[in-house]
Amino acid sequence: MAAVVTFGEIMLRLAPEGMDRFVQADSFGAVYGGGEANVAVSLAGYGMDARYVTKVPAHEIGQAAVNAMRRYGVDTGYMVRGGDRLGIYFLERGASQRPAKVIYDRKGSAMALAQPSDFNWEMIFDGANWFHFSGITPAIGKNLAQITENAAAMAHQKGMMVSCDLNYRSKMWTLEEAKVVMAGLMGNVDVLITNEMHAQQLLEADVSGYPTEDTNLGQEGCAALGRSLSERYGFRTVAITQRRSLSADDNRFKAAIYSKGEIAFSTQYTMHMVDRVGSGDAFTAGVIYGMKEGLSLQQTVDFAAAACCLKHTINGDVNLMSTAEVWELASGSGSGSVQR
Amino acid sequence: MAAVVTFGEIMLRLAPEGMDRFVQADSFGAVYGGGEANVAVSLAGYGMDARYVTKVPAHEIGQAAVNAMRRYGVDTGYMVRGGDRLGIYFLERGASQRPAKVIYDRKGSAMALAQPSDFNWEMIFDGANWFHFSGITPAIGKNLAQITENAAAMAHQKGMMVSCDLNYRSKMWTLEEAKVVMAGLMGNVDVLITNEMHAQQLLEADVSGYPTEDTNLGQEGCAALGRSLSERYGFRTVAITQRRSLSADDNRFKAAIYSKGEIAFSTQYTMHMVDRVGSGDAFTAGVIYGMKEGLSLQQTVDFAAAACCLKHTINGDVNLMSTAEVWELASGSGSGSVQR
Amino acid sequence: MAAVVTFGEIMLRLAPEGMDRFVQADSFGAVYGGGEANVAVSLAGYGMDARYVTKVPAHEIGQAAVNAMRRYGVDTGYMVRGGDRLGIYFLERGASQRPAKVIYDRKGSAMALAQPSDFNWEMIFDGANWFHFSGITPAIGKNLAQITENAAAMAHQKGMMVSCDLNYRSKMWTLEEAKVVMAGLMGNVDVLITNEMHAQQLLEADVSGYPTEDTNLGQEGCAALGRSLSERYGFRTVAITQRRSLSADDNRFKAAIYSKGEIAFSTQYTMHMVDRVGSGDAFTAGVIYGMKEGLSLQQTVDFAAAACCLKHTINGDVNLMSTAEVWELASGSGSGSVQR
Amino acid sequence: MAAVVTFGEIMLRLAPEGMDRFVQADSFGAVYGGGEANVAVSLAGYGMDARYVTKVPAHEIGQAAVNAMRRYGVDTGYMVRGGDRLGIYFLERGASQRPAKVIYDRKGSAMALAQPSDFNWEMIFDGANWFHFSGITPAIGKNLAQITENAAAMAHQKGMMVSCDLNYRSKMWTLEEAKVVMAGLMGNVDVLITNEMHAQQLLEADVSGYPTEDTNLGQEGCAALGRSLSERYGFRTVAITQRRSLSADDNRFKAAIYSKGEIAFSTQYTMHMVDRVGSGDAFTAGVIYGMKEGLSLQQTVDFAAAACCLKHTINGDVNLMSTAEVWELASGSGSGSVQR
Amino acid sequence: MAAVVTFGEIMLRLAPEGMDRFVQADSFGAVYGGGEANVAVSLAGYGMDARYVTKVPAHEIGQAAVNAMRRYGVDTGYMVRGGDRLGIYFLERGASQRPAKVIYDRKGSAMALAQPSDFNWEMIFDGANWFHFSGITPAIGKNLAQITENAAAMAHQKGMMVSCDLNYRSKMWTLEEAKVVMAGLMGNVDVLITNEMHAQQLLEADVSGYPTEDTNLGQEGCAALGRSLSERYGFRTVAITQRRSLSADDNRFKAAIYSKGEIAFSTQYTMHMVDRVGSGDAFTAGVIYGMKEGLSLQQTVDFAAAACCLKHTINGDVNLMSTAEVWELASGSGSGSVQR
Amino acid sequence: MAAVVTFGEIMLRLAPEGMDRFVQADSFGAVYGGGEANVAVSLAGYGMDARYVTKVPAHEIGQAAVNAMRRYGVDTGYMVRGGDRLGIYFLERGASQRPAKVIYDRKGSAMALAQPSDFNWEMIFDGANWFHFSGITPAIGKNLAQITENAAAMAHQKGMMVSCDLNYRSKMWTLEEAKVVMAGLMGNVDVLITNEMHAQQLLEADVSGYPTEDTNLGQEGCAALGRSLSERYGFRTVAITQRRSLSADDNRFKAAIYSKGEIAFSTQYTMHMVDRVGSGDAFTAGVIYGMKEGLSLQQTVDFAAAACCLKHTINGDVNLMSTAEVWELASGSGSGSVQR
Repeated sequence: MAAVVTFGEIMLRLAPEGMDRFVQADSFGAVYGGGEANVAVSLAGYGMDARYVTKVPAHEIGQAAVNAMRRYGVDTGYMVRGGDRLGIYFLERGASQRPAKVIYDRKGSAMALAQPSDFNWEMIFDGANWFHFSGITPAIGKNLAQITENAAAMAHQKGMMVSCDLNYRSKMWTLEEAKVVMAGLMGNVDVLITNEMHAQQLLEADVSGYPTEDTNLGQEGCAALGRSLSERYGFRTVAITQRRSLSADDNRFKAAIYSKGEIAFSTQYTMHMVDRVGSGDAFTAGVIYGMKEGLSLQQTVDFAAAACCLKHTINGDVNLMSTAEVWELASGSGSGSVQR
Repeated sequence: MAAVVTFGEIMLRLAPEGMDRFVQADSFGAVYGGGEANVAVSLAGYGMDARYVTKVPAHEIGQAAVNAMRRYGVDTGYMVRGGDRLGIYFLERGASQRPAKVIYDRKGSAMALAQPSDFNWEMIFDGANWFHFSGITPAIGKNLAQITENAAAMAHQKGMMVSCDLNYRSKMWTLEEAKVVMAGLMGNVDVLITNEMHAQQLLEADVSGYPTEDTNLGQEGCAALGRSLSERYGFRTVAITQRRSLSADDNRFKAAIYSKGEIAFSTQYTMHMVDRVGSGDAFTAGVIYGMKEGLSLQQTVDFAAAACCLKHTINGDVNLMSTAEVWELASGSGSGSVQR
Repeated sequence: MAAVVTFGEIMLRLAPEGMDRFVQADSFGAVYGGGEANVAVSLAGYGMDARYVTKVPAHEIGQAAVNAMRRYGVDTGYMVRGGDRLGIYFLERGASQRPAKVIYDRKGSAMALAQPSDFNWEMIFDGANWFHFSGITPAIGKNLAQITENAAAMAHQKGMMVSCDLNYRSKMWTLEEAKVVMAGLMGNVDVLITNEMHAQQLLEADVSGYPTEDTNLGQEGCAALGRSLSERYGFRTVAITQRRSLSADDNRFKAAIYSKGEIAFSTQYTMHMVDRVGSGDAFTAGVIYGMKEGLSLQQTVDFAAAACCLKHTINGDVNLMSTAEVWELASGSGSGSVQR
Repeated sequence: MAAVVTFGEIMLRLAPEGMDRFVQADSFGAVYGGGEANVAVSLAGYGMDARYVTKVPAHEIGQAAVNAMRRYGVDTGYMVRGGDRLGIYFLERGASQRPAKVIYDRKGSAMALAQPSDFNWEMIFDGANWFHFSGITPAIGKNLAQITENAAAMAHQKGMMVSCDLNYRSKMWTLEEAKVVMAGLMGNVDVLITNEMHAQQLLEADVSGYPTEDTNLGQEGCAALGRSLSERYGFRTVAITQRRSLSADDNRFKAAIYSKGEIAFSTQYTMHMVDRVGSGDAFTAGVIYGMKEGLSLQQTVDFAAAACCLKHTINGDVNLMSTAEVWELASGSGSGSVQR
Repeated sequence: MAAVVTFGEIMLRLAPEGMDRFVQADSFGAVYGGGEANVAVSLAGYGMDARYVTKVPAHEIGQAAVNAMRRYGVDTGYMVRGGDRLGIYFLERGASQRPAKVIYDRKGSAMALAQPSDFNWEMIFDGANWFHFSGITPAIGKNLAQITENAAAMAHQKGMMVSCDLNYRSKMWTLEEAKVVMAGLMGNVDVLITNEMHAQQLLEADVSGYPTEDTNLGQEGCAALGRSLSERYGFRTVAITQRRSLSADDNRFKAAIYSKGEIAFSTQYTMHMVDRVGSGDAFTAGVIYGMKEGLSLQQTVDFAAAACCLKHTINGDVNLMSTAEVWELASGSGSGSVQR
Repeated sequence: MAAVVTFGEIMLRLAPEGMDRFVQADSFGAVYGGGEANVAVSLAGYGMDARYVTKVPAHEIGQAAVNAMRRYGVDTGYMVRGGDRLGIYFLERGASQRPAKVIYDRKGSAMALAQPSDFNWEMIFDGANWFHFSGITPAIGKNLAQITENAAAMAHQKGMMVSCDLNYRSKMWTLEEAKVVMAGLMGNVDVLITNEMHAQQLLEADVSGYPTEDTNLGQEGCAALGRSLSERYGFRTVAITQRRSLSADDNRFKAAIYSKGEIAFSTQYTMHMVDRVGSGDAFTAGVIYGMKEGLSLQQTVDFAAAACCLKHTINGDVNLMSTAEVWELASGSGSGSVQR
């Protein structure tokens, strides 16, 4: 089957053990991840051919990032070596009323300083029919915005599907900067994944008049959001994630997928979380999986939401689930009984 | 006081740290346990003379299993040495909607290949007045079914109490195989511990007509189940466990004990779990304790259910609680306040 | 700003890893703490000048206790060296229905055997305008009761504010002993921090006629308690903590502060806890902070209760929060969303 | 460059932490390795295309073994799934006079029960020009001896180089069994790697008359051994490893390579060891690397011996060194100075 | 076979992980040990019936000490419960030129406050024919010196063998105190284990005129020491340990046993150590084993010295070796080769 | 006593556990250190008033660096907050022939981007009489070279002693760059600490004609080096460190101090190392201690060399020894016997 290419920055995540605060830490658990890397791992776990494209320094810390992807079956043959450092983010897990905290230390990374000439998209896209990136990648810097645009445009030209997880990060750029860049990228995007807030903030969708349910937009509003975004930007599909944070330990999640006038809604999950990071990426990978496999809209949103729910139970950035495991939950078995 | 003899397989349990999945594991926490071994540890912790009978290889991994029992006061003088390997089970803890997973690696174990001549039951039963086994032991293989039958028959002949935790494991044998073997063993059993489902599946009790409460059989149905099983198999006592899995983190548990027309019900506990494994064994040990101590039916079910509840808070297969601690919960103090 | 002096015993806390019981432990996590030490760390974390006064042995375990205070910015220049041993307490974390357990091993500690001549209060109080101790300090022994009285009296004479967390520990002395000593100390106390039960047990306040809410005293009762204590002992301020233990994992907390006829109530928090120990000290530090900063009664109780809530999410005895973090929760943001 | 195919069993290695004995272990560090898997990892680390062929069960423990190979760049596309269990070996590290101890638990593994039809050698050898196996593989069982012979014969027919690490394991088969099988396999072998003892025991080389140096065979004897083996079996190259165990912590190692009348000797290394396992495999990978790269006999033995030396400093079964790092030591820099 | 009774204090040993200093420690590894407890574990490991007698508090930390002995097969049926605390010692491992450091925190322990009436020696000695204690036990306090004397006298009267490891600890008492007490105890001792220094310091043996070898007393001097001690105190056997500390990592050890005019010398071992503590106890257990088994003087010293050597390779206080493992080293195989 | 001010960059050091290579690491041990920070900690440990001056970001990782200094008694009141990131260095421990490896990730750190206006040297030097920096500080960048020069010049003007550890780091700048900057700084330096190689490379001392001992410069050469440097640069004192790396585990160290025509030599130590980093800083702190305390040249070199030796036994960057412990080794007791 034709490959999926994902493009973004992979970082070293350093997190104190357990629930320790940064100032208590005598050691940091180390995993490697990033939005698009996480999507690639999920897809590889579903048995798909997933290529991850990024730039890492040619030293052992960079190599460890490559190995982390290889370990879970991602094709790392298109990763570029060079630059001085791997981006880092420090993660302090939250608990109850204390929120998790992220300190970015990603300036000057190999990826942040990457140049358009680093990536040979003709070669990268050979044999692939899907390109995915998130709103984090162009936020890294002007050159990255340009490289992302180049890649998306070429993918679009080649008739590949292009998906984008809108994902606005306020610590990386302002809303104003993000609006200009992201709106500009949308012309080449077929599939948008977003939550209701970012869609309104960045893409000028207005669904403020619709009723809310449990702090989230209701079904009518979701449909309106999907329709208006599709009309404005020509998206084939709009996937909408809806989360409510009950505490740092417990979240609720549900999703909707809109496509060409139709919309399907997932069930709602309440999760006692092991790791919050990367759950949106698990959802995105589920959407890509569903669409590439030709699932119905309902099957796709069921699969993607179940995958997202399960990611919350896995330590680290990446989702390590098989399709069988995801389907089991999507089919209604969430009692968590021991399998023996 | 006369000893309790329990008979079964002890295994090395290997579990990734924390909530890690198997494929993430760089190390495995190692504990030793098994249904009947767990019962023996509970009883030893209550100050009873508990003998555990099994066969382990004569190398250090086998010795470590012996030591694990000795550490908590079980009489290991009747454990047989020989064979090549100790059975292993890999345990991946579940979380929220992700179920725990067990991979058995127990084929060819010292116990699975044990022969009737390995066990001198005359000697083993000397000074004992109770024999306990579970449905897992005869499931290990034909020879084990035979050995279990031999032991139960001799115990019965000697006038010892014989208890059996029905415990059907679908990964070990089919329902058809289990029905034949387990029904055959019941003739020598005085005390049956079972949940409502296994009793119906293996022992042909039919209580499908009774109303359910919170997915479990209601009180009327429990009484009918106890009565019908007692009539058919001549049990002196039938203990019924009722569990509902809310998630991999949270379970509900209550129990009933039926004996000669009377039935007593425990309170219902909702547990945020540390370790799900071995909680049924903790309940069984509570039943044996109550009956050996001559407690009333109500006291027995209160004690056994409280013991089961508390086991969910203890890491590993075995229950490490004193009778005082169990009674404190059974007496109504479940607020978990710090004792200082 | 003038310094706060806190006086009490710092102990080595030894806790099995995770949820292990004492008898399972192969290692003990080691932190250093004690009621008044914890208050000092909180205050230092809020940027205040906090001096901690105690006596520790002149060996490396004593030094480690000093370092633990220094690490978080407490002024340790007034700690006295001498004696043979540092007090120890063993802490077994509870889970669900299993309560946490504390084994004190503090007899014969440097502090327990301290003499009045060990502490030069003139020097210690130089540049300070607040003195704080808890009911644990005089419970250590007769000499400590005397030393505490000396210190409180001198502080009072100097016009310093004197605060006391009533904190009765039944494993350390009887109610009768405590009543005599604590009542005697109250004459020099300006600010009392207590829960409703200890206030009634030790200080003969009687609010048994007032209605309860969710097992705690209602608002009317709190006001009556504050009024009656203030009248009897001349307190300027009475802070009342109200906790309900739902399980060893989950607690509810709210508080009230009464001062000169006025009373303010905090919101109620339900916490999924990481560490129960030291949360009362975090509240106390919040009260001291609010009063020293000249906050309103309402602001003070909001800040102190939020600080207390957050302490439950931090491993160890001490609260490691900035004022900004506390205010964020006090301002209503308890959703625990990731900050990135 | 054409690929190297290695064939053997990969096992889960379970080792107590640090220097703990088996009976002390509460957890086991888990790595995956095996003679030929280790060779493949070394080669992949040198930038070569290395395919590892084995059979692992289709569950998560089997998958973890696949992932371990993937992580370090080995091509795992030819690994077969099936069977019940992954072979295990327990490793207790030695210290000083206490020898390391291995308990094999590999009976009934997926590989031990593999059938000739499991492996499509035509496909596996496509694009490869080197086949490697060790004496451990045929020792696993009769079917494995047959499969190995089939593979070696086909590789030989195709004109591929065939290398064999003689590696006799007395816990797996008798000398008599080994002699028959291994001698039979030699006809298809081009490159033999062996120590002086196994060569004499299994392949009837007699160099007992030659002088020894530091308990090992001297240079003359090595030359005679290489010559006599080459004459008898038609080897193109014979690599001889010479080890002396000073203690469980310290070993000496040197090597010789004989080819067509020429012989080259490495320097001798004295290593303070981190992990003894897999060092022979690191040597073997060095020989294959040298021969495939067309290095001189002297360069090859220098590289292979340095690689072997360095493996002793790496925890786990596999050698994680770059060619640059190996050359640095081979070039004489063994002072271990910090590189900063 | 008749049992060996050992009598002394078991303590909780708390040691920072790895080579960390006390002031760096965030956790302490916890093991339980003490001179005579260690001897009992060694003997149980050799298959002997070993009873350990001490007093521990009736709480969980005391129970953990009992369990530690039970785990390794020691008969704990004679341990007394009571008192407040278990003695503790903090151990900081040394490295290279930095010596290991011990901080005793054993005052006021259950054992230190034990009374003669706590121990029913008639019952304890029933079925036993050997009594062992060390010079640490009477050093704990006056009551302990008395209890030890009572026990030794009764054992002697009953015709049991009485052994004493002289073991002077300068942090526990002065040389003057020790001389009086220990000399007084010698009348009931049959077998003395000592190093050359303590024998001279406490028992007034004078061998200062004999030549030394590698800082230790030479063979002639050892013989003279054994002879003079035997003459003065009527010992049946005198075992002399000779250690040289090369660094905190490396020690040399050899021993001699003198009995009735004969003397046998062990080989000398140079050990790269894992744990220094308890090695003398391993030697003592070897002497008792040899004598109880009726080995020759040479066999006994060979076995005991090899056991002592091997203890240095085991983490914790206790020696976990089988007789087969000890004999293997005693027979000359100290190369530490992997056994596989 | 007047304070010592040290100035440089403190970094977060991230090291894989044990002997793991970077590509194996799942977690990194985290300590904070840097040449001048390490000197400050040593001095604080000797009871001196040590101020450490640097710039760290105003987030929790920066705060953790402050806390690490505070914990060990360094005065952190002069540390400046600002900038984006804390410099990081990754450390892979070496073993045997495998060298330790350092990957610097310090570009763009708060300190690297610090400006002269960040540091108010008048205030910093108030109450101080010694200023110390190393050759690493000016290597960080041009602004740092300038700031260092400003500080050294002002210190010199004020009559403070100025010491410099020459310490050339080839990964930070070229020899040519270093020569210009370092030679320029020497005019304000009173005490130079250097090894023989850096002195020749950077300061144009030529002692190539003198005989070597064990790869190091002999005594005559040291004297010549001290003399020639003192003459050229006007140093009051020149301390020369002489190291030989036997392996990554074992080093030899000795030192000499030259002052005004006199020279004193230390004994030579052979260390089995726990942590190589920071040992030069421990030596430097020893020199400063000796000179500030008015010790003789011989006492100073004895103390400083013993301190350096002991640092090799301590995990982390900083030396945690008391003066008593250092003197004990300097006095000749290096046998590492347990102190109990």
